Amino acid sequence: MQTFVAVCGSDGDDVHLSSVALEVAERVGRGIAQRGGVLVCGGRGGVMQAACKGAKEMKGVTVGLLPDSKDEANEFVGIPLSTGLGLRRNFLVVSAADVVIGIGGRWGTLSEISFAMIFEKPVVLVAGTGGCVDELASGNLMKASESRLYVAGSAEEAVEKAFALCRR
Amino acid sequence: MQTFVAVCGSDGDDVHLSSVALEVAERVGRGIAQRGGVLVCGGRGGVMQAACKGAKEMKGVTVGLLPDSKDEANEFVGIPLSTGLGLRRNFLVVSAADVVIGIGGRWGTLSEISFAMIFEKPVVLVAGTGGCVDELASGNLMKASESRLYVAGSAEEAVEKAFALCRR
Amino acid sequence: MQTFVAVCGSDGDDVHLSSVALEVAERVGRGIAQRGGVLVCGGRGGVMQAACKGAKEMKGVTVGLLPDSKDEANEFVGIPLSTGLGLRRNFLVVSAADVVIGIGGRWGTLSEISFAMIFEKPVVLVAGTGGCVDELASGNLMKASESRLYVAGSAEEAVEKAFALCRR
Amino acid sequence: MQTFVAVCGSDGDDVHLSSVALEVAERVGRGIAQRGGVLVCGGRGGVMQAACKGAKEMKGVTVGLLPDSKDEANEFVGIPLSTGLGLRRNFLVVSAADVVIGIGGRWGTLSEISFAMIFEKPVVLVAGTGGCVDELASGNLMKASESRLYVAGSAEEAVEKAFALCRR
Repeated sequence: MQTFVAVCGSDGDDVHLSSVALEVAERVGRGIAQRGGVLVCGGRGGVMQAACKGAKEMKGVTVGLLPDSKDEANEFVGIPLSTGLGLRRNFLVVSAADVVIGIGGRWGTLSEISFAMIFEKPVVLVAGTGGCVDELASGNLMKASESRLYVAGSAEEAVEKAFALCRR
Repeated sequence: MQTFVAVCGSDGDDVHLSSVALEVAERVGRGIAQRGGVLVCGGRGGVMQAACKGAKEMKGVTVGLLPDSKDEANEFVGIPLSTGLGLRRNFLVVSAADVVIGIGGRWGTLSEISFAMIFEKPVVLVAGTGGCVDELASGNLMKASESRLYVAGSAEEAVEKAFALCRR
Repeated sequence: MQTFVAVCGSDGDDVHLSSVALEVAERVGRGIAQRGGVLVCGGRGGVMQAACKGAKEMKGVTVGLLPDSKDEANEFVGIPLSTGLGLRRNFLVVSAADVVIGIGGRWGTLSEISFAMIFEKPVVLVAGTGGCVDELASGNLMKASESRLYVAGSAEEAVEKAFALCRR
Repeated sequence: MQTFVAVCGSDGDDVHLSSVALEVAERVGRGIAQRGGVLVCGGRGGVMQAACKGAKEMKGVTVGLLPDSKDEANEFVGIPLSTGLGLRRNFLVVSAADVVIGIGGRWGTLSEISFAMIFEKPVVLVAGTGGCVDELASGNLMKASESRLYVAGSAEEAVEKAFALCRR
């Protein structure tokens, strides 16, 4: 069975979203597709768009779980699915995934990482991408909680870890 | 943009599910794929499985929104997505669709048709397939409510109507 | 533990909603409160408002699960809870209830009755109140499906049946 | 209209949950009830139970939005509502609230605080209660994001801030 990898990170309206994060996202998307995985995300801009772009370059499958309408999808989402749940749809992105890769991100990304921990799914954080992902990667949060958080130093390492963590 | 067609009907455990309904479902799935549509369904057995089988024969895209786990998907679901919502996931099948085709069906199907009416999406009922779909098609229910219910006499007519109803 | 009774029926914008249905709803609300039950509903107008009014006259507890905002609640809802789910919230009304009483109603009510059947919770239909409830009560739908549908001839009989069905 | 205050924090199985956090929770519950607010929470043990206990001592109204069954509710929940959503129900706790008070907490609490930020609702963190709340209160997370996070030094200050933030 194919591995479903969620890529979580900021939408395009995040003023702190860096070009580094976007480049990492694109390479992560490429890596997921190269390994035959299905990329699942919230379907919108920023990190989600860059990751879908990378996956599409490699002829990968990209699923976007959209807040309200298919029209919100970025142009690299192959399977746009409206949920009608608004931003509550974040939990669905995690439910549909075997593993989560976090890149940059704000509160929405943090809600997704939190749900991954609650549902006991592994999360790979790409260090150096800013936002809540870097703050978590630097180890300053939730030290006392058991977690399935893993840190990767590059896009390629993140994809490798993600697939390794799903192998059973 | 592609048309997303939900196919709703009984799971494989419905003892009243007829071979006619299953054959109609398979032909409906084939028709959706032939027209380049995306088939969305609950991803399980019975009508859902037959429709996915038909779509896959024509190299179509099939999305299954599963109650809890990807492992519940029938073998013809190309994109199995677990929702973690149990049978509450029925509303998502409708949210993701532009139009619904109903074949046979019990209470789950009736919940999906009800949500389609609530969300103002058209539903095409295939007459002669039994279950709640036939009861609705025979006009004995909800006569006083405004509806977007349409009746088709065959699988092919159902697909034709479904795509026509989505053309804007 | 208290019995939680969902009262489901049309909102105030249903032109077919009769004064009979509204009076039945008010008496059902009164009966639920008199027996110490908690009335759960969608929190809006029409049948929901009349039932909450009846329950409040008897100092009962009324919970309204609202589509989006507390401001949508009718004035007899004691505990207005916004869900943010829009009309998808219908499944929550059923999840929160031990038993459902149906009065009049359109597609929204039918979605709630369908979910009650899916979740295997009993539904008491009050005959003579119109809408989908009367159509179901008259036995013209879903004859082939196993169901937990019960028909009552009056508001009082409905409340009596509802509480009896929850006694274990 | 009454103010609805969500109290979020660890369930009873959190080995790091301190007696300080539990005492703060009880006093927060008391304060909410004294001001005539409705306490909303996840309905289970630990912080939720202590807060409900405090509110009940002051004859307050306590609502528990439970993962699956009413039987999971602690004994101080006056209105136990099953959601059937499992731990996905966290978003509902936030949707139902005007303001959130965070005490201690792990990933579940962090998902609730994240949703509050997403839905633009204020959160008051009680400093010194441990867990993710203390980590957020110490300012080491999400500095770059706009937030509606407020820090209180005591249970009483937290309640005062929470009600002040809802006054319009």
